[in-house]
Amino acid sequence: MHSSSTLKGVSRYALGAQTLNTLHANQVENLESTFKDISPDLARLVIEYGFSDIFSRSALDSKHREMATIAALTAMGTATPQLKFHIKAALHIGVSQIEIREIMILMSVYCGFPAAINGTLALKGVINESDVK
Amino acid sequence: MHSSSTLKGVSRYALGAQTLNTLHANQVENLESTFKDISPDLARLVIEYGFSDIFSRSALDSKHREMATIAALTAMGTATPQLKFHIKAALHIGVSQIEIREIMILMSVYCGFPAAINGTLALKGVINESDVK
Amino acid sequence: MHSSSTLKGVSRYALGAQTLNTLHANQVENLESTFKDISPDLARLVIEYGFSDIFSRSALDSKHREMATIAALTAMGTATPQLKFHIKAALHIGVSQIEIREIMILMSVYCGFPAAINGTLALKGVINESDVK
Amino acid sequence: MHSSSTLKGVSRYALGAQTLNTLHANQVENLESTFKDISPDLARLVIEYGFSDIFSRSALDSKHREMATIAALTAMGTATPQLKFHIKAALHIGVSQIEIREIMILMSVYCGFPAAINGTLALKGVINESDVK
Amino acid sequence: MHSSSTLKGVSRYALGAQTLNTLHANQVENLESTFKDISPDLARLVIEYGFSDIFSRSALDSKHREMATIAALTAMGTATPQLKFHIKAALHIGVSQIEIREIMILMSVYCGFPAAINGTLALKGVINESDVK
Amino acid sequence: MHSSSTLKGVSRYALGAQTLNTLHANQVENLESTFKDISPDLARLVIEYGFSDIFSRSALDSKHREMATIAALTAMGTATPQLKFHIKAALHIGVSQIEIREIMILMSVYCGFPAAINGTLALKGVINESDVK
Repeated sequence: MHSSSTLKGVSRYALGAQTLNTLHANQVENLESTFKDISPDLARLVIEYGFSDIFSRSALDSKHREMATIAALTAMGTATPQLKFHIKAALHIGVSQIEIREIMILMSVYCGFPAAINGTLALKGVINESDVK
Repeated sequence: MHSSSTLKGVSRYALGAQTLNTLHANQVENLESTFKDISPDLARLVIEYGFSDIFSRSALDSKHREMATIAALTAMGTATPQLKFHIKAALHIGVSQIEIREIMILMSVYCGFPAAINGTLALKGVINESDVK
Repeated sequence: MHSSSTLKGVSRYALGAQTLNTLHANQVENLESTFKDISPDLARLVIEYGFSDIFSRSALDSKHREMATIAALTAMGTATPQLKFHIKAALHIGVSQIEIREIMILMSVYCGFPAAINGTLALKGVINESDVK
Repeated sequence: MHSSSTLKGVSRYALGAQTLNTLHANQVENLESTFKDISPDLARLVIEYGFSDIFSRSALDSKHREMATIAALTAMGTATPQLKFHIKAALHIGVSQIEIREIMILMSVYCGFPAAINGTLALKGVINESDVK
Repeated sequence: MHSSSTLKGVSRYALGAQTLNTLHANQVENLESTFKDISPDLARLVIEYGFSDIFSRSALDSKHREMATIAALTAMGTATPQLKFHIKAALHIGVSQIEIREIMILMSVYCGFPAAINGTLALKGVINESDVK
Repeated sequence: MHSSSTLKGVSRYALGAQTLNTLHANQVENLESTFKDISPDLARLVIEYGFSDIFSRSALDSKHREMATIAALTAMGTATPQLKFHIKAALHIGVSQIEIREIMILMSVYCGFPAAINGTLALKGVINESDVK
């Protein structure tokens, strides 16, 4: 898929892919598969920049990173699929359902109730989907 | 200022005012003074809803709350004065400058570089202002 | 559901619940039911803050309140379920379909045509759903 | 300035200019002067589309129009100069300061407190500027 | 549909309708049909302002216009149906799929990866729908 | 400044720095200087990701890239300093003032007149600043 990558590209990719799969099993495959015909470079850049360059930084622990991400995506209100992904990732690495619920409640102060409600419904969707499995 | 408040209003206000002054000295006075002629009820609602109803909740620790708030305000990009207030509050309660810097870097992934840059400049502004004192 | 509420909490809740059911029958039940397993406190805060503290204020008449709300939600573009709820509420309390249509047209000036179009489609959705009943 | 306008353009312009000057004295001149070297057509389109095509519609009364506009601009948070202009216009045509203050308070429910606070500060700025005169 | 239009309105409408149908066959009919019962004036204004007053301007070539539009709608994140329409229009007038893909990748820098990803999925949706035909 | 960069990091940085200085003389120095005490890594990431990984891509020509960027930043309305930087860069690489003016006019259709007006005032600011020199 990223055959034109040089050695350095490969290693950022490999690191990012490993990080992404730690957050959510099979997610690298899903991402590659979703974008392989339309924009494989975008999938590669998500992994190289987001999950390698940024997620490999150690100054912010992974729990804090996911909490900040969930707050931002809830505030934006335009990224429901990404919010659901990061809710799953956060639960997976040890952020509690209660902490996520509270972040949504906190968002009512800064972004209003529609953002808080829609964020909470995203959390509910994630919980319900995982209950089904 | 909020003479029409009933007993219950007063106690939510008192709790919120105490919390707000813990985050940042004299902030209740500043808020009351800024809004006393134009919308005293808005100042009261900020304190009663934001700093009492929400900030008194214990499921999210205060450091996590400020980190989530900083992420959201950076993502929004429309609330620089509030972002600077919460950067000050976060530093005051023990979030490190490095953690705030990292939240801004993280935001580049979700909201793009202009939001990350403008958020970092807000952090720089807060640091410089406190150096002057 | 909100067993930990003190007496004062109950009365804000009772007032807000009454107001909300005036806007739209059974809405308190719907809200409580939607959030009861995931975030009952959020439902309570919507009612206590939004529909009691704010909606009980008398300086803005209820028609003006719904018109301003519809304009804001259309401008935001991230809150379609809430926009549809307030379109229903506005029609219920006497805002005319024509006035809502005009607010959407007005929004084209300030937020552009996509917001105006999507808002108008929300209005159309509400009208069509109520025609079916 | 809009010499290439055909007869029909002139009449939309004349109608819009008249409406705009009713909202705020000298505003047509200000607008023309601000944009005459950089984008005279934008000034013309604001007047022809915004203040003629839309503001000449009679289904929404002018007070409701300004209240909806103020709500939307406060929600957007990216249009402070335009918000201040419409606050002035609203006060000029009979919306009360109290009604504007209440719209800002209402916005806390839908867009959060930073939007409500920044909107209220815009109102305060308008009031203070007119006190000076 | 727009029987109350004066002669001048008709000609702006006719010009806009012609332009819109050039971008996408039958789109005028679709637009008129979608809005005929709910807000025929909004459909007329889209055509008169957007597709006549603005799209008839010649200083920006039509390819540049669609590229700028796609960038803006991707950045906004609140206008998926309009983004898909303009992706179709852009492909129709000679913007390549690769150029659109690159605009989405570019948007990751300014608006973050969720906007870039959701924009790319809109492009994928358009490509898949046209493959089916 | 980025002493911890490995060889590969250096070369992405060098490429990005070269690209950035092509757009606007001394901009690498300005960026490094602005962020050197507060977040040198953010400056490095802007250069490595934005101006190297993305700007080195050849599928979108540089004029189209700047036009799309200007449209997006105008639509966002939260990134005035970045918008002004890219207006300067666009003028520098051959986008005409008229094309930028037209992009702003076009934005009125998708994001409303406040965005179009504020974007045009950013253009005016850039023109006036360069006239002074």
